[in-house]
Amino acid sequence: MTARLSIPAPVLPAAEMAPRVLLGPGPAMVHPRVTAAMAAPLLGHLDPDFLELMDRTQHLLRYVFQTDNRLTLPISGTGSAGMEATVASMVEPGDPILVCVNGYFGSRIAEMGRRHGAEVEVIERPWGEVFSAEEVQAALRRRPAGLVAIVHAETSTGALQPLQDIVDVVHQEGALLLVDAVTSLAGIPLLVSDLGIDVVYSGTQKCIGAPPGLSPVTLGTSAETKLERRRMPVATWYLDLSIVQRYWGPERTYHHTAPISLNFALYEALRMIAEEGLEARWDRHRRNAEFLWEGLQELGLGLHVATEHRLPQLTTVLIPEGVQDAEVRTQLLREYGIEIGGGLGALKGRVWRIGLMGHSSRTENVELILGALRRIL
Amino acid sequence: MTARLSIPAPVLPAAEMAPRVLLGPGPAMVHPRVTAAMAAPLLGHLDPDFLELMDRTQHLLRYVFQTDNRLTLPISGTGSAGMEATVASMVEPGDPILVCVNGYFGSRIAEMGRRHGAEVEVIERPWGEVFSAEEVQAALRRRPAGLVAIVHAETSTGALQPLQDIVDVVHQEGALLLVDAVTSLAGIPLLVSDLGIDVVYSGTQKCIGAPPGLSPVTLGTSAETKLERRRMPVATWYLDLSIVQRYWGPERTYHHTAPISLNFALYEALRMIAEEGLEARWDRHRRNAEFLWEGLQELGLGLHVATEHRLPQLTTVLIPEGVQDAEVRTQLLREYGIEIGGGLGALKGRVWRIGLMGHSSRTENVELILGALRRIL
Repeated sequence: MTARLSIPAPVLPAAEMAPRVLLGPGPAMVHPRVTAAMAAPLLGHLDPDFLELMDRTQHLLRYVFQTDNRLTLPISGTGSAGMEATVASMVEPGDPILVCVNGYFGSRIAEMGRRHGAEVEVIERPWGEVFSAEEVQAALRRRPAGLVAIVHAETSTGALQPLQDIVDVVHQEGALLLVDAVTSLAGIPLLVSDLGIDVVYSGTQKCIGAPPGLSPVTLGTSAETKLERRRMPVATWYLDLSIVQRYWGPERTYHHTAPISLNFALYEALRMIAEEGLEARWDRHRRNAEFLWEGLQELGLGLHVATEHRLPQLTTVLIPEGVQDAEVRTQLLREYGIEIGGGLGALKGRVWRIGLMGHSSRTENVELILGALRRIL
Repeated sequence: MTARLSIPAPVLPAAEMAPRVLLGPGPAMVHPRVTAAMAAPLLGHLDPDFLELMDRTQHLLRYVFQTDNRLTLPISGTGSAGMEATVASMVEPGDPILVCVNGYFGSRIAEMGRRHGAEVEVIERPWGEVFSAEEVQAALRRRPAGLVAIVHAETSTGALQPLQDIVDVVHQEGALLLVDAVTSLAGIPLLVSDLGIDVVYSGTQKCIGAPPGLSPVTLGTSAETKLERRRMPVATWYLDLSIVQRYWGPERTYHHTAPISLNFALYEALRMIAEEGLEARWDRHRRNAEFLWEGLQELGLGLHVATEHRLPQLTTVLIPEGVQDAEVRTQLLREYGIEIGGGLGALKGRVWRIGLMGHSSRTENVELILGALRRIL
C-alpha cells in the first residue's frame, strides 16, 4: 500500500454512558430482552431465517395496528422516515391535500407534502387543542382534497386527537385519511381497521418499546389502490412504498439492505406487546399517567392539556413562573439521571414534556420523577 | 378500556437464528465488541453524552474517509439512503448530470437522479469493467454536466474503479464528482481529500464492520456551497443534508430521532478501525482476497473481473457449466452455515459473489469457504 494517510488515527475511549431514566418525548427505555435480541449475530437480508422473521414481524404488526392490511411493514428509518414514506407515496405533484396542524408534527407533514409537490392547505388549532370533525369537513367543503393528514398523539403538545368522527367525514368527502401514530401506537387504543383509517405510520422508540430506527406503516386497500395507480413515481426512491413493499411481499425483490439488528429488536418488542396484550398495555399506560397527573397536581404544577384530551403517554407540564426551564432539566439529568423533554416550537420554555412510554411506563419511574421534582422545585 | 380487539395476539417463538458465516455482498459479520456496544441502554438523542459520541463519531469518520470535510456524518438509513441523501441534495430539477453505469448500483444512482428531476445522461461499460477518464471526459464534452456520479467498488460486479484521473477530468470540465463507496470504504484505499472527491457516501455493514442501518457521507467545500445555494428545497425531507447537518453541527437543531443503538455500534466499529489502522486493514483485506483467489483458481474456478480491476473485498466467481447456482448456495447455507451471494442483474445465474469484508475478512473464513466449495463441487 503506497497511499499515505494525511489524517492520523484518533485514539478515543470506549463509550461509557451513564445510565438514564428516559422520561422524555422519546426514545423511551428498552427492556433488556429487546437489547439482548438486537445483539444477536447478523444474518443476511435474504437469509431464509430472516425472511421468516419478516413474516412474523408483519403478523405482529397487524396485531398492534389491529388491522388485516396486507401492506403492513416497518420502513428502514425513524418515525419521520415513515411520515415521508406515506406522505410521498400518497401524493403526486399538484394533488390537493389538507393537513391539520395543532403542533410540531402536523407542520412537518405539511412541509413534506409541499416538498413532494402537493397543494397543501393547512387548518390550525392552538397547540394543545384538538380538531372537531366539523372543522375538517368545513375545510374539505371549502376546498376538496384527496388526502387529509392528522396527528393522533401530538408529541409536541400532549394532546390526543379523537379519530372516529374525523374518519367518517373525511370518507364522506371522498378523501383518504393519513394518521400519525408515532407516539400513540401500543400506548392508547388505535383500532386501524375498525376505525377505517387508510394510512398510518408510527415509530419503534415510543410505546412499542424498541430502539429508534424503524417506522411501522400500514395501508388499507383504498390507499394501496391509490399507490398502484400513481401517474408519476414517488420522488424518493428509498422511501417509495411501491418498491419497498416488494421486498416485504412474496416477491422478496431486493430493495435495500434491511437494518437486520433493529428488526431483531422490533420483533422481540412486538412479542412482548403480544404477551402483555394490547388492552393490558393501554391500561398500564393509563394507570401510570393518572398516578403522574395526581402527583404533579399535588406539587402544584399545572397541566397544559385539558383532561379529556390528555395523552397518558406524554404529559405537558406548565413550567411555574420564575422557574428556570433548562436548569431544572439539567439538574434532573445530572443528579438523578432522569431525562425529561423541554417544549418544542410554540411551547418552548413554557412546558416540560414527561413521557411514560413502553418500558418507561412503570410505577417506580413515576415515583422517581415526582420525588425528584419535589426536591428540586 | 372499551375497545374490543378484532385481531388476536399471535403467539410466536423468540427468534432463534442459526449462526452464519457471512461471506456474501453484505451485511458482513460484526465483531462481538460492536454488538455488545449496540446493546447498551438507550440515551436520548439530545443527551450531552450522546452529543459527545456524535462529535467523536464524526472525528473517526473523518479518519476513515481521510478528509477534514466539516460536513461528515452518518445518515440514518442504509447505504441507499446515503445514496439518495447525496444525489437528492446535489441535484435540482433540470440539472444535467452524468452517471457512469457498469453495474447495478450505477443504475440505481441514475434512477434516483431522474426521480429528483435531473436530466440524467448515462454512459455504460459492460458489467465487470471500469471507466477510463477519457470516456468520462468525452461524455462531458458532448454534453456538459454539473455532477458526475461513479461507483468506486461495484458490489454487483466486483470491479474496482480507479478514481484519480476521473476526479481530474471531472474538475477540468467544471463538474463535481460524487462517489459510491458503500463497499470500498475501510476495505481499500480511499483518500477523499487527497483525491479531491467532492461527495462520498458509504454504508456501515460492509468493510466498516457495523450492522446495516447507517450511511456515512462526506461533502467537500464545493459541494457544501452547491448545497447552500440551492434554488429549491430537496424533495426529500428525511434525507435533506441541508437540515440533517444542523443536528450534527453545533446548532444541534432537532431533525429526527437518531437511531441511538446503531450509532453506539458504529462508534465502536470505527474505534476498531482506528486501532487496527487503515493501512493494516487494507492489507488484511488484500491478503485474504489473494488467498481466496489462489484457492478458487486451484479449484478450477474462473474469476469474472480482470486481476488489475478486481476488488479484494468482493470477488465474482464464474459459475462452472452444468453447476446449479441456487443449489450450491443452499447447500453452503444448510450444511456449512455459509452465506455467499448470487449474481445481480446482468450477472444473475452467471456468478457467485464472495465477500470478505470487515470482520468477515479472516483467514479462517477463506479456508472454510474453499473447503466447502471443494467438497460440494
